[in-house]
Amino acid sequence: MAGKQDDAFVTEITKQSVDFSKWYIDVVRKAELADYSPVKGFMVVRPYGYAMWEHLQRELDARIKATGHVNAYFPLLIPESLLLKEKEHVEGFAPQVAWVTKGGDEDLAEKLIIRPTSETIIGVMYQKWIQSWRDLPLLINQWANVVRWEKVTRPFLRTTEFLWQEGHTAHETEEEAQDETMKILALYKDVCENVLAVPVVDGRKSESEKFAGASKTYSIEALMGDGRALQAGTSHNLGQNFAKAFEIQFQGRDKTLQYAWTTSWGVTTRLIGAVIMTHGDDSGLILPPKIAPYQVVIVPIPRGNWQETVLPKCKEIQAQLEAAGIRVKLDADESQTPGWKFAEYEMRGVPLRLEIGPKDIEKNAVFAARRDTRAKASMPMDGLADSIKKLLDEIQQGLFDRAVKFRDEHTSRTDSYDEFKSTMEGRPGFVISPWCGEARCEADIKTETQATIRNIPKGYETAPGTPCVKCGKPATVSAWFAKAY
Amino acid sequence: MAGKQDDAFVTEITKQSVDFSKWYIDVVRKAELADYSPVKGFMVVRPYGYAMWEHLQRELDARIKATGHVNAYFPLLIPESLLLKEKEHVEGFAPQVAWVTKGGDEDLAEKLIIRPTSETIIGVMYQKWIQSWRDLPLLINQWANVVRWEKVTRPFLRTTEFLWQEGHTAHETEEEAQDETMKILALYKDVCENVLAVPVVDGRKSESEKFAGASKTYSIEALMGDGRALQAGTSHNLGQNFAKAFEIQFQGRDKTLQYAWTTSWGVTTRLIGAVIMTHGDDSGLILPPKIAPYQVVIVPIPRGNWQETVLPKCKEIQAQLEAAGIRVKLDADESQTPGWKFAEYEMRGVPLRLEIGPKDIEKNAVFAARRDTRAKASMPMDGLADSIKKLLDEIQQGLFDRAVKFRDEHTSRTDSYDEFKSTMEGRPGFVISPWCGEARCEADIKTETQATIRNIPKGYETAPGTPCVKCGKPATVSAWFAKAY
Repeated sequence: MAGKQDDAFVTEITKQSVDFSKWYIDVVRKAELADYSPVKGFMVVRPYGYAMWEHLQRELDARIKATGHVNAYFPLLIPESLLLKEKEHVEGFAPQVAWVTKGGDEDLAEKLIIRPTSETIIGVMYQKWIQSWRDLPLLINQWANVVRWEKVTRPFLRTTEFLWQEGHTAHETEEEAQDETMKILALYKDVCENVLAVPVVDGRKSESEKFAGASKTYSIEALMGDGRALQAGTSHNLGQNFAKAFEIQFQGRDKTLQYAWTTSWGVTTRLIGAVIMTHGDDSGLILPPKIAPYQVVIVPIPRGNWQETVLPKCKEIQAQLEAAGIRVKLDADESQTPGWKFAEYEMRGVPLRLEIGPKDIEKNAVFAARRDTRAKASMPMDGLADSIKKLLDEIQQGLFDRAVKFRDEHTSRTDSYDEFKSTMEGRPGFVISPWCGEARCEADIKTETQATIRNIPKGYETAPGTPCVKCGKPATVSAWFAKAY
Repeated sequence: MAGKQDDAFVTEITKQSVDFSKWYIDVVRKAELADYSPVKGFMVVRPYGYAMWEHLQRELDARIKATGHVNAYFPLLIPESLLLKEKEHVEGFAPQVAWVTKGGDEDLAEKLIIRPTSETIIGVMYQKWIQSWRDLPLLINQWANVVRWEKVTRPFLRTTEFLWQEGHTAHETEEEAQDETMKILALYKDVCENVLAVPVVDGRKSESEKFAGASKTYSIEALMGDGRALQAGTSHNLGQNFAKAFEIQFQGRDKTLQYAWTTSWGVTTRLIGAVIMTHGDDSGLILPPKIAPYQVVIVPIPRGNWQETVLPKCKEIQAQLEAAGIRVKLDADESQTPGWKFAEYEMRGVPLRLEIGPKDIEKNAVFAARRDTRAKASMPMDGLADSIKKLLDEIQQGLFDRAVKFRDEHTSRTDSYDEFKSTMEGRPGFVISPWCGEARCEADIKTETQATIRNIPKGYETAPGTPCVKCGKPATVSAWFAKAY
């Protein structure tokens, strides 16, 4: 992979305990996941980072299709007049859009925005396409880039341009739209937990944290290694808000003209950031096998006439593992020592390293080192592909279990605002506390502690008479609070 | 699929012989491949059209990776100053870019363009990433949207925004860059011919038709059903032009500082247009099985208690075919007649239709109708998946052979300009004629006949003394001329 020299100044990765933010940036750059670009706030996703995105895309796309959705593609540019149609939507997005004012030599009669999200342009098309209840549900997803003019950016976590999928569906009834919203939330949770090994809390957002124009917003929230929460995906029940703004109407089964019920939902390249900050350690990345560009790296030990003995064996094993569907990199570069390679692939988070030297071959074995636990063991060559597949599954599960344990250790419950504040000041994490449901209380808590309501999971209704952690008035629910990215 | 009513005004597809352009638009809209959007020149790629693009992407991406390239993602927006760095490049692209002048509330200090192609922004990154000959070759591909402000647009063929892949590579030597350029040209030809069943002529572009900033441009050219040529893909040897403009330098094996040799290459959503116009007929689309969203449609014949007898059998066959990797749609919608469905799926170009009624089941057979030849036959249910796979291969090959035959019938050779002109006026197609190599002659021919040089294949050098078809001066090569999209 090119560009080692470019990042040579990242000679050491900053320790997490010294500066977690700097650790993150060091890892992103040294592992060549992303790079800064000549345009402020825009990142370049480098091949190693993009390969992770591709594996995630494949898993997510398969699930989106398996639940009856189809992909399509809508225009990048949206006329200003469309943005203005839904009142809350424009208020939420107008301050952060990029404006196209000139095309070729001509000044445009109407300014265009680069899509920050596509409800508006898709709304116009749905108005054309939907006429009858027979056209519903309409279940479309789009893989695309979007632009939101951000003031403070950080690779993957918050960038002016990012990649995402955005689903947009229209339904006959409110109930169906709500079912869709929840089905997607569960799908996102499945992908995060079972592909990325990132445990998430799924629940409803408070009114003040809703998507601009939504009736209800649901999110999945993960906990990063520094104890801060990261919103990992959102699913919105848009009610009839966009249908009314864009006149998406259909003739119902009873022949009356009705507004459709719509939803939208998305996850982004931010999930790469979630993987980095959930699993990584002071040596760099730790990648869950399911999205690791290479699941196994083979490092030949160059002793004696290794090119005639060791190297052919390494190639044979590579072929054998690849035939079993395992992603393998064989690094036979002579200009680097095995020791350098061990550190390099640890930093890049490759789940499993196989060292193969003359002695291993004598013993008809390979020497394996796990990235997650750093456990090392000799593995017999007989049945190697099967043993490695099993081991990769173990690593995947082990990473998830470890992340759940960390999350649980950093989640506390309290009814006392003093305890709430001291927890948020000390070792951050989730704090679950009763809340009265008032935006005012939520805002005061944020001002005083920087913590926001991440979401309110199902079943978190409080017993009658429970007081709000902040104001003491009756609480209706318990909310998950955290300082967040 | 939604939106039938929307396109109800396309009640009849215009006959190709009456108006080929109108036939094309009718097919695109009635088959729901694409739709017009609220922004002039921008299209919406609808699910049926997008599924074709996805199948093409999968085939192309696999080949791009198999030849050692990796995917990455570069920013959508490019500072004006970068566009200005390569002189020919800016002259070629500046007139047709979209300008972003405002982000959020701030007027931008430097205007940004939406990428019309990414040589410039990638050049900046390559300058950073490439230091030594060990960093070469650098072989990166990007799947992305680009914007070129077009005055006259047509769905898929020429749209202001389109989807494409753009490869960008950097090499140590001129020879390696040239090898890469030709390797990709061959890869594109393979995909067009073996996936899309669209035969193409591969060759070098004349100087005047080169990509802005390239040393040499190569293209593949297909012939559409109306006898006009379509440029289906291009591969550029950029020499050291961009390396010099962007200071992409490396320390060579001999320790001297050298400029890299770069290439770029791309194919676009235009290829969907090529498929439509190569294979379609007066009844609508004809899709090659390899990119057909559904390769087989099953239409149950609703006789007697068909829901208890015929429908379960249809579902059984669907499951059986899908298990064999065949893409199947079962249309059991009771609100439409079999006859309506036959016409609908013919119009949508589904390669094979299976009709299954009580009598077929009695005979333990299905009734199959090919879209390409309209041949119909009973097929035994025993071993059906295998027979259908074979049949789909036959259809794929048959479409290619038919297109080659059409191309050959519409290709002529002449040394006489009178004959050249009369051919171009009458039944268009390719005309192969000797050419002196002068841009002036090429321009005169275009003015007088609308025909342009599509490309000059390898081995088309002329015998000494051959006169140019236009000016009579000595010709060096024979070129393939055609009126083109």
